[in-house]
Amino acid sequence: MSTTTHAIAAAAPGAPLAPTTIERRDLRPDDVLIDIAYAGICHSDIHQVKEDWGQAIFPMVPGHEIAGVVAAVGSAVTKYQVGDRVGVGCMVDSCGECEYCRAGTEQFCVKGSVMTYNGVGYDGENTYGGYSRQVVVKDAFVCRIPEGLGLDVAAPLLCAGITTYSPLRHWGAGPGKKVAVIGLGGLGHLAVKFAAAMGAEVTVLSQSLKKQEDGLKLGATGYYATSDESTFEVLKGTFDIIINTVSAQLPLDDYAGLLRVGGAMVNVGAPGEPLSYNAFSLLLGNKVLAGSMIGGIAETQEMLDFCAEHGIGAEIETISAGQVNEAYERVENSDVRYRFVIDAATIGA
Amino acid sequence: MSTTTHAIAAAAPGAPLAPTTIERRDLRPDDVLIDIAYAGICHSDIHQVKEDWGQAIFPMVPGHEIAGVVAAVGSAVTKYQVGDRVGVGCMVDSCGECEYCRAGTEQFCVKGSVMTYNGVGYDGENTYGGYSRQVVVKDAFVCRIPEGLGLDVAAPLLCAGITTYSPLRHWGAGPGKKVAVIGLGGLGHLAVKFAAAMGAEVTVLSQSLKKQEDGLKLGATGYYATSDESTFEVLKGTFDIIINTVSAQLPLDDYAGLLRVGGAMVNVGAPGEPLSYNAFSLLLGNKVLAGSMIGGIAETQEMLDFCAEHGIGAEIETISAGQVNEAYERVENSDVRYRFVIDAATIGA
Repeated sequence: MSTTTHAIAAAAPGAPLAPTTIERRDLRPDDVLIDIAYAGICHSDIHQVKEDWGQAIFPMVPGHEIAGVVAAVGSAVTKYQVGDRVGVGCMVDSCGECEYCRAGTEQFCVKGSVMTYNGVGYDGENTYGGYSRQVVVKDAFVCRIPEGLGLDVAAPLLCAGITTYSPLRHWGAGPGKKVAVIGLGGLGHLAVKFAAAMGAEVTVLSQSLKKQEDGLKLGATGYYATSDESTFEVLKGTFDIIINTVSAQLPLDDYAGLLRVGGAMVNVGAPGEPLSYNAFSLLLGNKVLAGSMIGGIAETQEMLDFCAEHGIGAEIETISAGQVNEAYERVENSDVRYRFVIDAATIGA
Repeated sequence: MSTTTHAIAAAAPGAPLAPTTIERRDLRPDDVLIDIAYAGICHSDIHQVKEDWGQAIFPMVPGHEIAGVVAAVGSAVTKYQVGDRVGVGCMVDSCGECEYCRAGTEQFCVKGSVMTYNGVGYDGENTYGGYSRQVVVKDAFVCRIPEGLGLDVAAPLLCAGITTYSPLRHWGAGPGKKVAVIGLGGLGHLAVKFAAAMGAEVTVLSQSLKKQEDGLKLGATGYYATSDESTFEVLKGTFDIIINTVSAQLPLDDYAGLLRVGGAMVNVGAPGEPLSYNAFSLLLGNKVLAGSMIGGIAETQEMLDFCAEHGIGAEIETISAGQVNEAYERVENSDVRYRFVIDAATIGA
């Protein structure tokens, strides 16, 4: 009892992605069938295909930045109708009952939220992601993409967007606040747009000044190279919030030095190697190191609404299904401005 | 133009403390002359006498946990009168004009706050601390010790108290919150009292169960040995706030595991060696590592008022001037329950 749909999958760890077909379950009462229009390529897709983060499930259909149109709804679905523009991010289910689910932070569900791909649903079935023509998702994990926000530029918001929006909100980005964004990539370029739209003064901290022009166009008013040691002197004690989008072993003491008293540096990526710092770096200024992982469903909807209101979409390069392996290489070489989006119509076409 | 007063000083780095006399300045219009009744012994006194924290000023009269009675006031002082019960903590001056001073966080004064001892005043004069019969301090850096709070048990509140009170307040200790305190020493025992009085559920995490009975009497409802690995399993995901009073290289990933989603671990001490953690430990649960350094003057007054209201004082062992060197050894051996307080009447007597 299922529907066959075209997809792109890695057959084994590290294998190139290739066309295939997968089964999508028949609609349960609370399910939504989505015709996928676009799926973003997140760096974490590559990590999971390569099994960088531990044992994974193969074949793997990556993709947790999904934008499309509702094609059918289950009998109990009232929130969505056929034709609605919707998105799906990193999660497709959670227990709904634990304190974290009730608090709208389903990503920390005590039972364990179900990942959109490389996961196992509560029904015991493997999950397959957005590099596909269609997907079936429980209505509670489907977000509405507001009119005026293109489905292509909306897709990356479902992961890269919420990942940077949530910590900016939590740590109080807004008028009068100075925000630094480390790394101008898929996550970083959205962090810059968000922080600027929230009214903060935004500075990009990048290895080089190569993307400076872009950074300023995106809304930053400052752009500094971290390869230049003087950056850490010039900007000492400047920032209320630093959003670190770079998964590398950064010298935390140097970055803590850039924080104002009470400031917070938030990692949204995670290097494999441990990070190290001197306790005095936080003590002298009541400073904070924090982590932030995506965001809950309600906050994801809030972020999408915020994007529509402020005209924010991802900067994208649209590719066809056949270009995915090449795109993976380019992502690994940081050669994308700023997110690849797969045109799902080309999958199996 | 000065007054000679008895004191106890270290003549050189690591030298034993010995009786001496020092000069206290004549009262400026905004100065308060305090007859010191008690001075607490803080572990940081020992670090500074030993020059553990870099070059220090000798002779050194330690002591930044001062409680006494106003003996005279300058011509412009309206806040205090002769006979008032007062305390002085870690700072005796700051610029008063920078954003951090205006925000009541004088400890982060941009010009640099003046430490109570081992510091240099804005007048260029070295500062000498509370192991002394008298001290002269600018009125803005003098706090009122409320009636009902003994001067002896109040003295340690001026450093150990505010150091633990401030992060508990900042990170929201209160009813419904679970707080862990690492280390049951001079700082830790006050953290337990404060967190319990704030309405939180308090657990002590100590190397052994040696002080368990004390911990429970002080207000903790849980007491676990960190030398027992099962502690980290049993308490996984439990705490909203962990106050770390131990200056040692703790395994941060293990402790982060004890935090609930969104929980914060705050270091109020600082080991000399770097701390290290895996970014995932914070990411998976939006967790926080923070530092906290003493507190501002207004918050110190708030803390003293809170103590009077809740009947909180330090657990002390009162010693005479001649016992200070022995007390230092005992502090270094963690052999004090829980703070030594010098009876200042015995200095030079």
